Amino acid sequence: MIDTRKITMKKENQEYLWKLRHSCEHVLTQAMHRLYGADKVVMAMGPATDDGFYFDFEVKGVKISEENFPAIEAEMQKIIAEALPIVRKEIEVAAARELFKDNPYKQEWLDEIETAKQGATVYWIGDQFVDLCKGPHVDNTNEIKAFKLLSVAGAYWRGDEHNQMLVRVYGTAFPSEKELKDYLFMREEALKRDHKKLGKELDLFTFSNLVGAGLPLWTPKGTLIRNLLDEYVWQLRKAKGYEKVTIPHITKRDLYETSGHWAKYENDLFKINTREGHEFAMKPMNCPHHTQIYNHVPRSYKDLPQRYAETTMVYRDEQTGELSGLSRVRCITQDDAHVFCRESQLNDEMLAIWDIIETFYKATGFPKLAVRLSLHDPAKMENYLGNEEDWQKWEDGLRNLAKSKGVEYTEEQGEAAFYGPKIDFMAYDSIGREWQVATIQADRNMPKNFDLFCINEKSEEERIVMVHAAIMGSIERFMSILIEHHYGAFPVWLAPVQAVILPINDSHLAYAEEIGAQAKEMGLRVAIADSNESLSKKIRTAQMEKVPYMLVVGNKEVEDKVVAVRKRGEKEQSIVSAEEFWQNLKQQVDNKS
Amino acid sequence: MIDTRKITMKKENQEYLWKLRHSCEHVLTQAMHRLYGADKVVMAMGPATDDGFYFDFEVKGVKISEENFPAIEAEMQKIIAEALPIVRKEIEVAAARELFKDNPYKQEWLDEIETAKQGATVYWIGDQFVDLCKGPHVDNTNEIKAFKLLSVAGAYWRGDEHNQMLVRVYGTAFPSEKELKDYLFMREEALKRDHKKLGKELDLFTFSNLVGAGLPLWTPKGTLIRNLLDEYVWQLRKAKGYEKVTIPHITKRDLYETSGHWAKYENDLFKINTREGHEFAMKPMNCPHHTQIYNHVPRSYKDLPQRYAETTMVYRDEQTGELSGLSRVRCITQDDAHVFCRESQLNDEMLAIWDIIETFYKATGFPKLAVRLSLHDPAKMENYLGNEEDWQKWEDGLRNLAKSKGVEYTEEQGEAAFYGPKIDFMAYDSIGREWQVATIQADRNMPKNFDLFCINEKSEEERIVMVHAAIMGSIERFMSILIEHHYGAFPVWLAPVQAVILPINDSHLAYAEEIGAQAKEMGLRVAIADSNESLSKKIRTAQMEKVPYMLVVGNKEVEDKVVAVRKRGEKEQSIVSAEEFWQNLKQQVDNKS
Repeated sequence: MIDTRKITMKKENQEYLWKLRHSCEHVLTQAMHRLYGADKVVMAMGPATDDGFYFDFEVKGVKISEENFPAIEAEMQKIIAEALPIVRKEIEVAAARELFKDNPYKQEWLDEIETAKQGATVYWIGDQFVDLCKGPHVDNTNEIKAFKLLSVAGAYWRGDEHNQMLVRVYGTAFPSEKELKDYLFMREEALKRDHKKLGKELDLFTFSNLVGAGLPLWTPKGTLIRNLLDEYVWQLRKAKGYEKVTIPHITKRDLYETSGHWAKYENDLFKINTREGHEFAMKPMNCPHHTQIYNHVPRSYKDLPQRYAETTMVYRDEQTGELSGLSRVRCITQDDAHVFCRESQLNDEMLAIWDIIETFYKATGFPKLAVRLSLHDPAKMENYLGNEEDWQKWEDGLRNLAKSKGVEYTEEQGEAAFYGPKIDFMAYDSIGREWQVATIQADRNMPKNFDLFCINEKSEEERIVMVHAAIMGSIERFMSILIEHHYGAFPVWLAPVQAVILPINDSHLAYAEEIGAQAKEMGLRVAIADSNESLSKKIRTAQMEKVPYMLVVGNKEVEDKVVAVRKRGEKEQSIVSAEEFWQNLKQQVDNKS
Repeated sequence: MIDTRKITMKKENQEYLWKLRHSCEHVLTQAMHRLYGADKVVMAMGPATDDGFYFDFEVKGVKISEENFPAIEAEMQKIIAEALPIVRKEIEVAAARELFKDNPYKQEWLDEIETAKQGATVYWIGDQFVDLCKGPHVDNTNEIKAFKLLSVAGAYWRGDEHNQMLVRVYGTAFPSEKELKDYLFMREEALKRDHKKLGKELDLFTFSNLVGAGLPLWTPKGTLIRNLLDEYVWQLRKAKGYEKVTIPHITKRDLYETSGHWAKYENDLFKINTREGHEFAMKPMNCPHHTQIYNHVPRSYKDLPQRYAETTMVYRDEQTGELSGLSRVRCITQDDAHVFCRESQLNDEMLAIWDIIETFYKATGFPKLAVRLSLHDPAKMENYLGNEEDWQKWEDGLRNLAKSKGVEYTEEQGEAAFYGPKIDFMAYDSIGREWQVATIQADRNMPKNFDLFCINEKSEEERIVMVHAAIMGSIERFMSILIEHHYGAFPVWLAPVQAVILPINDSHLAYAEEIGAQAKEMGLRVAIADSNESLSKKIRTAQMEKVPYMLVVGNKEVEDKVVAVRKRGEKEQSIVSAEEFWQNLKQQVDNKS
């Protein structure tokens, strides 16, 4: 199973950044207490995050909106200027209960701390403000060099809709003004490109209150792009000898008990009790099912490698609060594949997958991928399958593979799967964000659990190895990256409409239809703007839909059998024969250029 | 939702046949009591079925196998010759308890009869044999003109694996020897063609004990055929303006409460309780999801028809005892489509679907389909949506449609869906069995439940109509019919391997590979039998795999650049140039001939 849901973060300074942001969140709380009173702004909780921090609180008789930000930020600035020490104290639960006696949220935390038989930890800022908190924090408020409050939203206490609705203030903090400025610029760019917003504008997918959160429904346009991507992956795979298989989306519990997933992922599973009282689960991954196809007949070494490809949905019982657009959904489409091969075939199979990854990402607008070898941590062998010697051998194998490809790569200890090292691929989008997009993993655990072998030349049972080989990983997540990377202006081969013909008035419609039919005959996706709107309105619509080419046709074009071509994002027009234009367009599509 | 799981049966004489078979089952029981004693063969239950009848009993100290059939049949023949009257009696439960005092199974039935506050009914055959039974039966054992015992199997009491394992004897009965003979011939043919058997021999699909019953896993070969069929349906649909959409396989309960399916099909649903306590269900049909795509933006009459196609799995919590190969599964792939259109567009849309059905079934080996208009029953208007006038109008619409197609059709009252009349299509397979294979249904209920409309020319909200338009219906069930119809010898365009090249020895392998590469270049599916086996063994393997063409290549063929072609099922060979053969084959594939 490949989990590609998370954006990778640079680990450098990450720990310090989190301390800084967490401390800034405390400063925010303190500032609000000073401004509005601790009885009116009852603090609930607030963590540091990948992007900054937030703070949830219950308001009583005051209203907090973004209009209050300048005042709050000024008060925070004062606390920073006061250079107050931030000091950790371990105290008895009873003492903590007294300290937060008017705060039901803190009392609820303390109930849990008591149940877990732990001690309470508090952090003081100076001698006027204290919060129940595990930390860690920076040592002084004056370490906060650059911060900004960003937005206000509603949030249920502990993410549960049955609880009190709280107010959440988002902010961020950085060690320098420069970094903050860069982040704010990036944030603005990211907001403009937000796939949720663009997905709606371009009509790619939708959500329904009746169907539920985290369960996208894909429109014809969105489905077209998904299928074009998937079909391309399949063409690349087919050329490498892959075959498609088909599995059901549910299984008896027994399959995941054998694979070991039931114990490990039980909470993430959608579980089903049948009318006959059997326990089923919706599949959260495809590998265990695929082993059953491998294993349904005895396999000779001559039958190997078996390469199974299947684009299919998997399901995870994500918490509602964790869901976000296409980035985190409950129903994930994987362009999954598994190779069942001998150890001696492993390198060739991994190289074949590597080729596919490079070709695919180039064609989708990511010409350069960073390569990371994710290795084991020798100090924590208890977390891994196999011994140090195995791992050395496996990791040397990957190093040799990377060297034979002649690419640069980095190594990262402790990032391996428990069953083996991985090759991870990182893409950089047009605003510089890093995304982990693909991974190649050799798995020696599942073949063991399912007792997968082939009969070798000596008529012995030879344990085989299994390679996990998704290219996009999750199509939903990949689509979110793709939309934001291209700002919705997809490469020509992926654009739902590749060219739109704009007849200046109805007298040019017949010609528009004639050349449109030629294009459709060639398999191109062409639309005709035949509405009764003005030319400038038609152009604006085509621009909003980010159609790669606009072809204006008026008297002159009809007469000369040409089209006036305007490329997406460019102002100049060029005049070419319709036939020549379609040939060029066809070539662009075929070349995925 | 289209339910195509059941084989249609001719209704003619059906009622009498069931009485006859049920009586024959009693005669079987009586014969066994005479032969082995009622204490050794404890009768549990036994119904008439579509194919005959069966009888479940607990054996004590005797062994019943097919070897005993001649003796049992002889005893049954005696009872028939005795011309014993079969007489129904209604008696008190207490009296029935006394009558079956040594039989725990009958006592269990009587518990239920008592709970339901019903009276007991028994049937006497002569004065020596009685069984607790609701009937109905024929009047005399001598009405049984032709019968045969067929097989023995194990079966749990009431189909529950926690209960006592019983012995089940299957048999059948007909009103004439001729009908019995025809049935037995058909049964033998059907057994030879059984898709479960052929599916294994041709390696098309498999089942796994870890995954569970009713959940087929499709191998590369089986998936290839599924996908070829599905891709062909899509090509036909694309030409008619359909677009693909994609939906998640689960939904909140809310969707089915709005559609009305929750109340109607709750028992058939796989239900899920999420970690947050929400109630979800796996989709048993796709229409409610598709309405959410139609409805996610306001629709103008200019946007209609919206035609959504999606091949996707649906799920039904079938009872284990009901499952059978691919004919009845828990996870069903539908080549589903829904058209959202105005009433004024309905006829054209239905005709377009009709065209697709005709073309598709012709290409898959069913050149002639019978057409049935499934109409409402005017005597039972309470079962239907809408009034008599609506139905007259709708049904006249279908009649006109059928007339405009110029085809023969039959009409069947009481076979309509509750929301409207249907056009049903019946195919006949190569051993004469009738299968309902496709249906076109206009649905005015779901548009009402989901409030689906378009804004018409007068800027009014106009209620739309929805057409259900699956072509294969269930791919699993269609595959089972296809496999049995063709006896596994698929039409060339569907054969997993279209031609196999048989080099006589290794010296001919290079030439085999050369011409094989040409074929692959042309998109043909070709295999080379390069094993070290004898030519006759290679031929037998190709025959078993039902490959459409065998191409033998030896010295002469290599020299002359030809192939010796043998067509599946034929003995003669013909010599043609490899190139010419591939061209011919390609043409056959392209023409689906």
